[in-house]
Parts: sequence; structure tokens; C-alpha cells
Amino acid sequence: MQHALSVSRMTGNRSTFPDWYQAVVREADMAENSPVRGMMIIKPWGYGVWEEIQRDLDRRIKETGHQNAYFPLFIPLSFFAKEAAHVEGFAKEMAVVTHHRLKAVDGQLVVDPAAELEEPLIVRPTSETIIGDAFQRWIKSHRDLPLLINQWANVVRWEMRTRLFLRTSEFLWQEGHTAHADEVDARAETLRMLEVYRAHAEDVLAMPVIAGEKPENERFPGAEATYSIEAMMQDGRALQAGTSHYLGQNFAHAQNIRFQSATGELEYCHTTSWGVSTRLIGGVVMTHGDDDGLRLPPAIAPRQVVIVPILRDKPEDAEVLAYGEALVKALTATTTLGERVRALLDTRGARSADKRWEWVRRGAPIIVEIGPRDAAAGQVTFMRRDDLRDGEKIKSQAMQLDEFIGAAPALLADIQRTLFAGAKQRLDANIRTDIRSFEALAEYFGAAAEDEDEAVAFKGWVRAPWSRPTGAALEAIDERLKALRLTLRNIPLGQSAIGGACIFTGAPAVEEVLIARAY
Amino acid sequence: MQHALSVSRMTGNRSTFPDWYQAVVREADMAENSPVRGMMIIKPWGYGVWEEIQRDLDRRIKETGHQNAYFPLFIPLSFFAKEAAHVEGFAKEMAVVTHHRLKAVDGQLVVDPAAELEEPLIVRPTSETIIGDAFQRWIKSHRDLPLLINQWANVVRWEMRTRLFLRTSEFLWQEGHTAHADEVDARAETLRMLEVYRAHAEDVLAMPVIAGEKPENERFPGAEATYSIEAMMQDGRALQAGTSHYLGQNFAHAQNIRFQSATGELEYCHTTSWGVSTRLIGGVVMTHGDDDGLRLPPAIAPRQVVIVPILRDKPEDAEVLAYGEALVKALTATTTLGERVRALLDTRGARSADKRWEWVRRGAPIIVEIGPRDAAAGQVTFMRRDDLRDGEKIKSQAMQLDEFIGAAPALLADIQRTLFAGAKQRLDANIRTDIRSFEALAEYFGAAAEDEDEAVAFKGWVRAPWSRPTGAALEAIDERLKALRLTLRNIPLGQSAIGGACIFTGAPAVEEVLIARAY
Repeated sequence: MQHALSVSRMTGNRSTFPDWYQAVVREADMAENSPVRGMMIIKPWGYGVWEEIQRDLDRRIKETGHQNAYFPLFIPLSFFAKEAAHVEGFAKEMAVVTHHRLKAVDGQLVVDPAAELEEPLIVRPTSETIIGDAFQRWIKSHRDLPLLINQWANVVRWEMRTRLFLRTSEFLWQEGHTAHADEVDARAETLRMLEVYRAHAEDVLAMPVIAGEKPENERFPGAEATYSIEAMMQDGRALQAGTSHYLGQNFAHAQNIRFQSATGELEYCHTTSWGVSTRLIGGVVMTHGDDDGLRLPPAIAPRQVVIVPILRDKPEDAEVLAYGEALVKALTATTTLGERVRALLDTRGARSADKRWEWVRRGAPIIVEIGPRDAAAGQVTFMRRDDLRDGEKIKSQAMQLDEFIGAAPALLADIQRTLFAGAKQRLDANIRTDIRSFEALAEYFGAAAEDEDEAVAFKGWVRAPWSRPTGAALEAIDERLKALRLTLRNIPLGQSAIGGACIFTGAPAVEEVLIARAY
Repeated sequence: MQHALSVSRMTGNRSTFPDWYQAVVREADMAENSPVRGMMIIKPWGYGVWEEIQRDLDRRIKETGHQNAYFPLFIPLSFFAKEAAHVEGFAKEMAVVTHHRLKAVDGQLVVDPAAELEEPLIVRPTSETIIGDAFQRWIKSHRDLPLLINQWANVVRWEMRTRLFLRTSEFLWQEGHTAHADEVDARAETLRMLEVYRAHAEDVLAMPVIAGEKPENERFPGAEATYSIEAMMQDGRALQAGTSHYLGQNFAHAQNIRFQSATGELEYCHTTSWGVSTRLIGGVVMTHGDDDGLRLPPAIAPRQVVIVPILRDKPEDAEVLAYGEALVKALTATTTLGERVRALLDTRGARSADKRWEWVRRGAPIIVEIGPRDAAAGQVTFMRRDDLRDGEKIKSQAMQLDEFIGAAPALLADIQRTLFAGAKQRLDANIRTDIRSFEALAEYFGAAAEDEDEAVAFKGWVRAPWSRPTGAALEAIDERLKALRLTLRNIPLGQSAIGGACIFTGAPAVEEVLIARAY
């Protein structure tokens, strides 16, 4: 067996990348399409990754002073009316509940026309309006501020073209919603949560990102400022992996979210919102997967060390299993990356070679094999999933049991580091900063393929000086970029003063912007 | 202030009980009604309790070999058609999604008639059908069994009369779904999860329950056997707090869930399902609440020890705060009930008396007050929420700081025990076993009040011998009980052989059944 996967990754062009992605998600047992168009089933291994992501993010969200709560799945249509009237770019692809009962007619189950709702209900696409309505009731005084709320929930946005994890009609996410007494506090919150997302992406997902502010045309509808973290996938495209919005007083005005200040005046709050979703898992796949399947950073691997016993339906099996159980117990007593090592002895009744390859495809960071001879000799043979091959050959190491138990925590931490370093190197090496005109940009990215699955050469990102155009000028630029299937990703934070001319307007540049093809 | 709550609990009758319940839920800051009829907002303190419940149950569910996964929110209407045709008692009150887009017409936002779905989608009321469909694809061989899946999710069942936590149109729950090769294995699973629920209810919620099998007429539609745990609320009514179903091969036949046996034959699986929901929180309130608000068992209290500093806007405040922070740190380093103590210093800018009463109403198990004199003397003053009053007087104790830090874990464990013991005593004292005829039953419970909020004397449960009637005979009994607003709750497990005659049929009794008014 040359590759564990049925589909190989990139071979210099991008035509096979989407197929490869689907193959990894499927063959790593992460998720699958459901009978409901556009909605996925997250399988146990994929959901286990989400649980690890949740656990880490939830801790960070609480450590920054937020509390979890839960708001209704359905939102009255009228709640969106005001927003729709005032906000351009308001998305209208939503699931609408119109009836509340079925009935049997001639043995057929149909929607009962007598059970039509007076007002249609929208399945939440995001919860600004329903949470804002609660904030308006909860906030009375400056003493109630800041109000820092987070919700873990499912949301629905009707999508026509869907892809597992990356774009699905239902997805799981967290959405933070906060209210503050003034702009300074709200802006600080917006950036604080962006930094939480950056740290989570880099330190836990081992996925390097560039944090920055979105240009005006890419803002969340109604926001004063939108920030994002952007990650580079292995086909060069950008994945927006998290966003944080400073909403100014716009939502507070629309929803009458006011407080009495220390001096007794009634003032409008400044609000923020921020979120990341199961899309992160798609990012992990496209950052770390290879032609053998997924490679999971240990920090989010549901099982970090998987032990495959070689069983032969013979009496020695009992010894092998006892040896494996003792190893799991010893590993579980050690810690890595701040937590107990998560180890598993895979006792399922299948061929051990099949099981080994299953764990390779699933991306378990360390895969151990033990047979009767290992048990007798007190040793183990293991593979590092991040460094699986030497050419075509599979690499494995043997170690004495005690040595391995002692070394495993550091090995796992090293795998976490190695995966990050590899992705960071790819990101750093694929951002061009030498492009100085729109023509050069067009030439670099080449003609836009109409079908996004068509073969095009690998291209990374361009970081170019610009003059921060706004309004109609920015829209015109956006149109020109769209023709090349490009978008402005963000304006990286922490820039030092730059010189030169904007590649779009020719005016003096004030900062640099990232340009890329994106998911 | 005599009572922290605006509404007093029972005074020998039940007329104020529903009002008292609503007052506790509201004034303990647990949940509130939302603008969407029948759907609640779970506030941070209430959601924190749910998080503790989830954490414990999730651990127990995983320790018994189950894995979490996630399935779509929407289920095609056709998936219910077969079930509806075959299953009597199939509930039809469901939220139906019929459209996927809004549009603006004359400045109004309306449902776009052009975006009608070809097939209506049902917001899941439970997931047997959609998970069964996946099982049918996933299960090929006996080696794939047992398949043990759990899902944490929101579900929607349209309800006309709703009550926070107890009956809401949307609620949060976990639903386990498993498939097995044979009946013995599936029945063992059904009882194993019932025992998980019993242990969680009693050991964590401090809510004593009676586990038993539901009589035939109370089975989940399509189940071969349904088991429940039943808890007694302070008004004497029963609350079904969790159910576990052995579904036989019924769902497997309907959904074609088959496997190849070790001998090569194609056989239908035996399946189970089981669930508990946010309803448990309602049970906790009605089990442990008093006229001062909620009393939370420490195992599910988001904060177990709350420290209220007495601040006077003077320089000494800094010392008090530092003293409080040191106390939080010291407490957090100790463990109780198998986990780190959860302590909080409440630094919000409000009067300390108001804060103290807020924590009383919320049910924090231990409430500590510290002022400048405490800080200077190295002592603390604290209240046990489970033992708050001596008559009308509030009880508090003073202790040296080190002594308190050393004692807190045991105090918390004692509060957990005390709350359970109190509820257990109430349950045991209020099950009558001396009723030997339907007439005596009717006399004990008295005339049925039409309006359930009307004043009626406190009544507990009756445990009576019965002959396990079925079919039409059982239906007739059910009707007679309904006229008294009574239901058969369950047939407690672990009965020894009994004698006597069935109070319904007069035939020789084979076991005892619990009869009660219920939520």
C-alpha cells in the first residue's frame, strides 16, 4: 500500500485538491453528508476534535470574563425587519418555520394548514437580534456593564454549494455578544477576542494565522469594524477562521440597548460580537492533511496515542492485551500540553494492519503496535504521524517500554510544534510582497478559472501597499478583484509605517492589505 | 427582610406552588421567557448548572463506552411518514420549515414564495429516524456492534402550555442511540443507562428517584419497554426525570438496520434510546428550593463558595479585596466531591447585603462575608445555604481563615449529603403502601380539581399491588385514573414477590405500581 488515502493531494495544480479534501474528511471518519441537503453528520472522530476545540476555547472565553447562556433557536421574522431595512448586505437565505403541526390525511403525513403560525419564525442564522433584545431588558445601569455573554449553538444559513465543515447549511459555533459603556472598552474587547482566536488557532490547532482588520467592504453588516484571522490552506487559498466585530452603537440604537451612566444620563451601549465555528475543523484538515490522510495536532486529537495490539486468536493474546492496558494506564498518568495524555488500546476485532492504517488516516499523533514479542521483550514499536515516511517507506521506531512512557509527553509536544512550524513556514514562504501594480497582481494570479475546481497553478497570497480607499472607489476595486476571483482578506495588525503607492489607486499607501483567493 | 423571595412556598396547600416555582426560577436568575412563545432563555447561572450536569453525565456516558456525534437539526418529512403510519401515539406537534428565503417587498420583509422547499423539513423532536438512517449505512457486520452513540442537542416539540425548564417548546438534552446484535445486550444497555441516570440524579443532583419500568400505556411509541426515573417534587407530584427505551427490532425493521452475523446471516439489530434534558433543572428547583430561593447541591453549583466583600469606598477596601482573593486562591486549591472547589469573590459594585441576598436566592451552597475587621482578625463569617435559618433568624458562623479553608471541602460534601437526605426522607415518608382499592385511592387523592393551579391538599404517591393488566383493560384503568388526574408512574425495579389483589382488577397482584399526579 503506497498511500492510505484513495486520492492523492496536490501535484502542482489545484484540480485534485477538493477531491483530496473530501477524501480525507471521509476516510479519516470525520463527517459525511446527510440525507438533508447541505447538512452534515459529524461522526464521532470529527466530533471528538470539536469537543477538544470547544474545551480549549471555552476555557479561554471564561478566563476573559465571559459567561455562557442559551437563547432561542427561533427568532420572530419581525426582529429582522429593522435590520433588513437599514443594513445593506443583509443575507436573506434563512430557514423559515411556518407551521407547527403535521396531520395524517388518507394515510399520508402532511403539513396541517390549520397550524400556520401567525408570524413566521426564522431558524437563527446568528443571534444578534434575539440576544440584543435580552440585553435591552437586562441592562439598566452602568453597574451592569460590561455584559459579557457567549453561546454555544447550532445555526442555519441556507447554502446552495456546500462542502463538509467549510460551508454547510447547519453548523456548530460559539457566538460572543457583549455590551459596554464606551467605545474604548468595546474596541478593547473586540481585539481581546481576536487575540483569543489567534492564540487558539496557533497554539492549539497549530494553524498559523494573520490577524487583521477587514476592509470596509468585507465588514459584517452593521459593524463599525470587523477583524479576522486568516489561515493559508495547502492549495494557497485563504480560510477566514474567525471574526470579531465592533458594532459601535448601531445595534444598540436599533434595539434600544441603553444604560444609566454614573452621572445619571441615559446612554446607548457599544456592542461587539465574535465567533468561530466547525469550519475550523476544515481548516485543520486543509492545513495538516497529507496523502495518507489527516494529521491531527495532539492538542485536539481525541486520542493522542493509539495502541494497536497484534492479536492472533492464540493464548498469547491475553498477554498482549494486558501489556497494552498497562501501557494505556501508564500513559494516562502522564501529562502533555497541560493535560493528561489521551491514550487508547484499540481492541476491536479487525486485522491489526487495517486498524493501523485507519489510525494513520484519522491522524492519531502516535500509533503504537505491540505483539507477543514486544510484550515479552518489554518494548514497543511506534510511528509518528507527523513524520510517517522516508520516501515511500514507513518509518517506525522501537523503544523500551519505560523509555517510551517517559518520552511520550515530549514526543507529543514535539509533534504539536512540528506541525505548527511546517504550516508557518508554508505561510511565510507564500506571501509575496514584491507586487507593485494591479497588472502585476493579475499576471501573478493568472486568468481566473470560471470553475473553481479547474486546474490552476498553486498561488499563495499577496501583501500589497494600499491607500485604504472607501465607498465607490473600494467597490470598483472589489469588482476588479472579483473578476480574478480574488478578495481583500485583511489589513494585518501591527504594521509599521510603509512607503510607496497603493497598487489600486496609485495614491500614497498608508498600510498593506492581504489579497488572496479564499474559501 | 423575612424572606429573600417575593413568593412563599407551600403553606399546606398547592395553590401557590406554581407561583413559587416561577419566582424561584426568576429570582435565582436561572431562566426567563423569551419573545418566542414557549421558548426560554437560559441565563448564565441556569446555564452554569446545565454545564455542570452535562460535565458529569458526559463523563458517565463516555465511561460506559459511548461516543458523541452530531446529526442534522432538520429531518425530511418523509422520514416520519413510516413511523406515523405504524405507531399509535405518534406526536404531530412539530415545527415545520417550508421555505428557505426571505425577501423585501415594498420595504417589508416577507417569506419568499419562490423559495418553497420541495419537501418540508421538520425541526427534530427526537432523532431516532435520522440517526437510524445513519446506523443503517454504518453497520455492516457484527464487528460493528454494539454501536454506542450519544448526541447533545436542542430539540423542538410544539407545546401549548409551557413552564420554564419543565415543558418548553425548545429544550436542550442528550439522546443516546445504540444498536446491538441481540436482545440480551440491548436490554442490558437499556438498564445500564437507567442506572447511569439514577446515579446522576441521586449522587449529583441530590434528587432521590425511583427507577422502574413504565406500564405498557406509558411506553415510548414503538418501544418494547420503557424505563424511567421518577422524582417527588415538594408539592408531592412526580417528575419523570429520565427515560431509557428498549426498542426491540421495531426501529431496525422500519429503517433496515441489519448486520451480517458471525455465521454469515443477515439479521436485524436490536436498538435502544435514552435521554435526559434541561427538565432536570426544574426538578432540582422543585426538590431543593425553599422560601428564600434556590438551594443548589454543591456538585452542580457553578460557584460553591461565594465571598461577598463588605466595601465602604475607603482605603481598607483594598485589604478586604486582597484578603478575599487569597481566600479564593486557597479554596480553589482544595478539592471536594472529586473536583476543585469553585469559589468566587463577588467584586461587583452593589451593596453587600443585596449581593448576599442575591447569592441566597441563587442557592450558592456557602456564602462568606468579609469586612475590614474579618481581614484584620484573620477570620471569616459564613452561612450554609442548606441550613440558613433558626426560625426567622439567619444563622451564620465565624471561623478562623485557615480553619475555614480546611473545613470547606467537608462542609460542601456535607451540604450535598444533607440536601439528599432531606429529599430522601420526604420521598420515603410520602409513599403510601396501605391503599388496597380503587375507592380508597380516589378517596385519598380527593376530587380532581379541574384547574391544576387550584388549591388541593398535599398528596404524595401511592404504591399499590397490581396484576399488570394490558390492552383494553389497561386503557380503561388509565381513563379512570385520568378522571382523578392521576397516572401510573412506573413499576419499581427490584421488587420481591408480593401477595394481595390488584387494586384495579381484583386479580392476584404480581407486582406493585406507583400512582401519582405528575408534571
